[in-house]
Amino acid sequence: MQFIGVLHGDIASREDAPKNFDESERVGTLEIYPEYQDGLDGISPGQTIVVLFWLHQASRSILKVYPRGDRSKGLRGVFATRSPVRPNPIAISELEVQSIDGNQIKVLGLDILDGTPILDIKKKLR
Amino acid sequence: MQFIGVLHGDIASREDAPKNFDESERVGTLEIYPEYQDGLDGISPGQTIVVLFWLHQASRSILKVYPRGDRSKGLRGVFATRSPVRPNPIAISELEVQSIDGNQIKVLGLDILDGTPILDIKKKLR
Repeated sequence: MQFIGVLHGDIASREDAPKNFDESERVGTLEIYPEYQDGLDGISPGQTIVVLFWLHQASRSILKVYPRGDRSKGLRGVFATRSPVRPNPIAISELEVQSIDGNQIKVLGLDILDGTPILDIKKKLR
Repeated sequence: MQFIGVLHGDIASREDAPKNFDESERVGTLEIYPEYQDGLDGISPGQTIVVLFWLHQASRSILKVYPRGDRSKGLRGVFATRSPVRPNPIAISELEVQSIDGNQIKVLGLDILDGTPILDIKKKLR
């Protein structure tokens, strides 16, 4: 795996993070490392992009969790949830591009901690 | 990265693969390795799941492509496309669970080659 960049934002702890991107109005900047900048050609403001993050602080050894921390529903397999806890802690966010300046992409909708590595960006399919 | 399983299907070449999951009626089986089977608890037939695959045959060094192989539109950065070519060749598919038997999940909607490693499964958000 190669990290293609890093997220700069104002979410410093998991307690402060929205549960998912669809509940977030938080903004931040995707810094893409210069050697990958050519791959951004064609991304423009107003687009929604799909961004994959590597949740470097998440546990990788737990296979059952309480969904959204609610113990009343009982334990569930991590693959049946969106928990950050999973063998490969990859998060998928759909983010709105507000502006793009060289290798810096300002985005809306963040649910991810400041300093999280970026793995990939894709066009949203629909 | 840890591969949590492998896809068994009937798509043997990229030429035979649908362009994306939303255009596919192909079925196959996700074989999840036994050490990860506990993570499947809560997945049931009829659900749509989000599956991340590692496209082990894709080039990782190309940053510009012709979208969908159509040269008339000119080259575009891989991060503005859904091309399998990208620094971390991770594919996202939304697949319908047809049945689940232990560590074998039969799914509908495949656009991925037989033998492709599986990285993650998530609940579809909406």
